[in-house]
Amino acid sequence: MKEFDLIGNYFAKGGFTRKDVVLGIGDDAAVTRVPAGQCLVTTTDTLVEGVHFLPGTEPDAIAHKAVAVNLSDLSAMGAEPAWISLSLSLPSIDETWIKAFSDKLHSLSKYFSFQLIGGDTVQGPLSITITAQGFIPDDNQIMRSGARPNDWIMVTGCLGDAGVGLDLLKNKIQIDHLEHASYLKNRHWFPTPRVLAGTTLRRIATSCIDISDGLIQDLKQVISRSEIGALVHLDKLPISEAMGKNIENVVDAITYAATAGDDYELLFTVPEEQRVNIETALASYNIPVTCIGQITGATGKLDLRLNEQPFQFDIDELGFEHFS
Amino acid sequence: MKEFDLIGNYFAKGGFTRKDVVLGIGDDAAVTRVPAGQCLVTTTDTLVEGVHFLPGTEPDAIAHKAVAVNLSDLSAMGAEPAWISLSLSLPSIDETWIKAFSDKLHSLSKYFSFQLIGGDTVQGPLSITITAQGFIPDDNQIMRSGARPNDWIMVTGCLGDAGVGLDLLKNKIQIDHLEHASYLKNRHWFPTPRVLAGTTLRRIATSCIDISDGLIQDLKQVISRSEIGALVHLDKLPISEAMGKNIENVVDAITYAATAGDDYELLFTVPEEQRVNIETALASYNIPVTCIGQITGATGKLDLRLNEQPFQFDIDELGFEHFS
Repeated sequence: MKEFDLIGNYFAKGGFTRKDVVLGIGDDAAVTRVPAGQCLVTTTDTLVEGVHFLPGTEPDAIAHKAVAVNLSDLSAMGAEPAWISLSLSLPSIDETWIKAFSDKLHSLSKYFSFQLIGGDTVQGPLSITITAQGFIPDDNQIMRSGARPNDWIMVTGCLGDAGVGLDLLKNKIQIDHLEHASYLKNRHWFPTPRVLAGTTLRRIATSCIDISDGLIQDLKQVISRSEIGALVHLDKLPISEAMGKNIENVVDAITYAATAGDDYELLFTVPEEQRVNIETALASYNIPVTCIGQITGATGKLDLRLNEQPFQFDIDELGFEHFS
Repeated sequence: MKEFDLIGNYFAKGGFTRKDVVLGIGDDAAVTRVPAGQCLVTTTDTLVEGVHFLPGTEPDAIAHKAVAVNLSDLSAMGAEPAWISLSLSLPSIDETWIKAFSDKLHSLSKYFSFQLIGGDTVQGPLSITITAQGFIPDDNQIMRSGARPNDWIMVTGCLGDAGVGLDLLKNKIQIDHLEHASYLKNRHWFPTPRVLAGTTLRRIATSCIDISDGLIQDLKQVISRSEIGALVHLDKLPISEAMGKNIENVVDAITYAATAGDDYELLFTVPEEQRVNIETALASYNIPVTCIGQITGATGKLDLRLNEQPFQFDIDELGFEHFS
């Protein structure tokens, strides 16, 4: 099958279409319109087989994750998704695989109202690069650099599930409770990008980042960019029922929650006067949110506490390292 | 070296900066402004080692080609480049390689006035995906679908050089004239995206495509999208001095010019009343342009002639196939 057939048969049709797309798939480039008063927000993320997902991962999970990690980056800026471009590198043409991949992509495009506007298909090792574009009202972007001393540190959802799910898939750990095990694996395969939370945080959060490399690793980015310090109460990290009931050692559970990557929850800071507002707004959308600590003036310092006592993790490097 | 250091040391600084970039490299996503009255034009292309470039290709040539193929797609729409996002998949960290790659990228960003606004670096097989974004005045995009019967078929530059250069590098052919051989290899390594030609063609050309898969393969796209036919005089294909003097068999030379990919010249159509205008405009920029044939009403038909006689190539499949 030629590239043109592949694109025509599986990608050019079946997804969400938007009125702001002047020209979608099928020419040298796509043409779109950014609404007046909005800035364009652009992010690119690549997933490589064996690095970002296990060999043999189902195509729908790969498609889901490739989209989710990009929408998560848009959400961390407070942006709403509009269009994505897909570069798909495939070792060979497997139509069953491509159909499952493109079906999931189209279903996500309808759920999140973005349109696939173009891309590239090449022969090569299995790898997916997505560039996602979205909008944010002028000057409303939420940056990593805006956290201020005394701001509360908040996170959406539960932390560590994806890390436990990955260890289950790698047979590093075992969980007998089938429903819990399945929930945790699904949190690894199908992370939820916090699109609605992201747009809700505009004008309220002082800083925001998505948790892709692990809470501590990503919080360090905020600390560095905002030139502040942070105090985190590890005992307050939100843990799912599935994780809490099956990872019985508290330090193990906290290690997953604080250092495992791929949760794609949002980590953000809010000043005291906005805390109730944001809790109310997110609650109205059924998005769980937890306060896990506070920004301090101790520039560059990350102060971890467990039950009010200073705590140090017993590992050298925390969070996902991109080159090992 | 960590991803953060890699980006900070080699990619975050050193390139062209634009005033329409609100937020560049360093956050979850980039924030930019599209000027009023302009549409956004977006394209994505991936180069994989061993598929799109030979193993061992110098990093500056890889960077050049990755940028050029994307700018070429923007040019084929009539758009001017503004921003690019880079996803770089590297087997390991080789700082000499990365410095040469990023130096070339920065130098191109200054030459073509685009800004590198973000991307991703991952560990994986050597592969480069660039998403380029540019502008075009509202409703001025030049599409593949606009060619009309009697329009003249024109191409910029010379054709086939990159194909000869590739065969030289693969030792499939030999050319003793050192200067010519070097010119031809450089045309393969460092193709020139026709950015200025692209913007000049706005409101004049009825259709345009860049020649990436070979003249015939790409012309077939125009034929199919425009629902017309085409008559091409193969003896009129523009051939460089280096190719003309060294590929002495006429059919060999024409085969390179008509079927080899990677030239990144523009193939476009203009109505009779615009032909002089476009020739004058391109000449004023020193951009060579040649009329190679005419659009016909014979829908779907590509009529190839050599010295007025019908001609058929003696190969089954012409042009670059993305999956072999």
